[in-house]
Amino acid sequence: MRKIYDIILFHRETKGESFLRRLEGKNPLFICAIGTTETAKIPSISAAGKFPELTDYTPPADVELLLLGRCKCISGVPVTPEGIPTPAIITMSALKLANIPALVASGGLKVNPHVPFLDLGGKPGRDIRTGKAVENVKEVIQKAIIAGENLAGTADCLVIGESIPGGTTTALGVLLAMGVDARGKVSSSMPGNPHELKINTVEAGLKALGAEFGAFVSDPVKAISCVGDPMVPAFAGLVMGAASKVPVLMAGGTQMSAVLAVVKALKRAVLDNVAIGTTRWIILDKTADLKGIVTQIADVPILAADLDFSQSRFDGLKAYEAGVVKEGVGAGGAAIAAMMKSGGSVTKETLLREIERNYEQLVGSK
Amino acid sequence: MRKIYDIILFHRETKGESFLRRLEGKNPLFICAIGTTETAKIPSISAAGKFPELTDYTPPADVELLLLGRCKCISGVPVTPEGIPTPAIITMSALKLANIPALVASGGLKVNPHVPFLDLGGKPGRDIRTGKAVENVKEVIQKAIIAGENLAGTADCLVIGESIPGGTTTALGVLLAMGVDARGKVSSSMPGNPHELKINTVEAGLKALGAEFGAFVSDPVKAISCVGDPMVPAFAGLVMGAASKVPVLMAGGTQMSAVLAVVKALKRAVLDNVAIGTTRWIILDKTADLKGIVTQIADVPILAADLDFSQSRFDGLKAYEAGVVKEGVGAGGAAIAAMMKSGGSVTKETLLREIERNYEQLVGSK
Repeated sequence: MRKIYDIILFHRETKGESFLRRLEGKNPLFICAIGTTETAKIPSISAAGKFPELTDYTPPADVELLLLGRCKCISGVPVTPEGIPTPAIITMSALKLANIPALVASGGLKVNPHVPFLDLGGKPGRDIRTGKAVENVKEVIQKAIIAGENLAGTADCLVIGESIPGGTTTALGVLLAMGVDARGKVSSSMPGNPHELKINTVEAGLKALGAEFGAFVSDPVKAISCVGDPMVPAFAGLVMGAASKVPVLMAGGTQMSAVLAVVKALKRAVLDNVAIGTTRWIILDKTADLKGIVTQIADVPILAADLDFSQSRFDGLKAYEAGVVKEGVGAGGAAIAAMMKSGGSVTKETLLREIERNYEQLVGSK
Repeated sequence: MRKIYDIILFHRETKGESFLRRLEGKNPLFICAIGTTETAKIPSISAAGKFPELTDYTPPADVELLLLGRCKCISGVPVTPEGIPTPAIITMSALKLANIPALVASGGLKVNPHVPFLDLGGKPGRDIRTGKAVENVKEVIQKAIIAGENLAGTADCLVIGESIPGGTTTALGVLLAMGVDARGKVSSSMPGNPHELKINTVEAGLKALGAEFGAFVSDPVKAISCVGDPMVPAFAGLVMGAASKVPVLMAGGTQMSAVLAVVKALKRAVLDNVAIGTTRWIILDKTADLKGIVTQIADVPILAADLDFSQSRFDGLKAYEAGVVKEGVGAGGAAIAAMMKSGGSVTKETLLREIERNYEQLVGSK
């Protein structure tokens, strides 16, 4: 597949290239949209936290890493149950190398980070099996639109990432509720993608509502409120507010398709100014199908940072090649943004060296 | 006095001019630092709210006006007891004319606004007569520094305003605690400036601590914690974080001197990149002496938007010429920023027309 610098033009090549050219040498702002959901605590559903109860700390710890270079609400950094560290290490390394500023936007958190964050009036999410997953969805979207509009007035482009454990399951919830068939297609931070568990979880939520696949096809607020998570309205509102003014790179994996479905339903026109930026591990993922979901929704390009950790000195990074973690905290999009801002002087090699330097300092051991 | 466009070079002319030239045609970001303090509810101390209890709603209503063009947490707009409307109408008009984006940063609020805001971990302030005015001062400063650094990475310059009823009294508290003799020199939103009441209020706070004038001359965190307000640490941290990278216009009246004293004590070097931007009404104020306070602290220029409402069609605006309100919500600095960004095509006349248009729509009557 054709590349620009170390960025793979994975889907809609020409459109993706012209999107990237608009980022060349420009000054992006990275925003991390975060939230928590009780859904993450369903056993075996998420690896974004060593134990289920720790998933409340993953998003605040991730953004502390981005803004402070270290976590404050936990010791060390967020890890999977196997001890593989958070992709926020990739994101912080990319932002640092290209000197990209960052902000945090909260859609609803159980634990606040020890860094400044944009409060969008949201609350932490409930287990989607209740069918009453998120409060204040409309309010959060409206506030995020205002924030997106104003931030687009100061930055050349926005790169928006996310951190929410359990997020692919709640994304599946939004997608199925909106009639996008993403069954067996969402990604996972674990190599063994527990599709059945995710589908059963969403279906339990829909059943609690007496609803089924496609029940809220044109009502994204309802879809999120019932079986989504608090990150999605924050992210979608930011896109809606910003993308009418500047290019917006939606930095993430299959969760981005849920955001895309929401944006399409509420403000379709801005999708011309949007691309998805992810990692090579997501597009190689045999257990998921980002393109297969996105093409059901909208014609937006998919770009992937050609990150390759196979030669890393650290087992915790090599593990990414085995399909662990793969993406999160906007890692792929931040890498893409760093390459474009620097006109290609940030490469996959310089990035890996910086990631290893930070890994060594933050995680220490091999 | 010499002017650039409709901006008066009031103090340190040459330095002020070179500061302004660095803003010419550039893209500023406006940030409104807000907070509330129980001090505002001492009878006759503040006019920033029709009744003392309403002062909790003034800062959120002010920033709603900036970001939405109308207030949501109250009907109408904040007014003085005589019905004179908030200077946020000036600020919103200036930002609108020059298409300047805006964000809100909270140092501690009793009532949250219906717009997104940066949460800096602060709490609403207590009556300074207790001597225990503000919690978490250090934390708020540190978070505001992080926010300031990142926002300076995306904007060419920062214009920071404030809204906190009772703010000149708490500013006097910080100044006296830090050994700056501002007695009889702080401004007021009322024509009859209640200096004695303000001094007595601060002295009650110092007495409660067994402290006196200059007790915390080199400990600004203590000064704010004891007799300050939650807006000051938010504002000071933003300045400290941003001014090492980009020019920062501190938009306000005599309260800016308290912020200046804090910044000087904690990060003196950034003061080279700072100016105070205010209104003509502040520099004409016979009941106060901004220059007389500032010169005790640091060598920073004072600039004043040459606003003149004497010919306005509206009595509520004409009242500004009689010394009511005078400044607030960064009105003067926003006007200056609009003039500089537009290369002088925003003038005092175009601004007054826009202010009157918004006044008519928001306040209605003469």
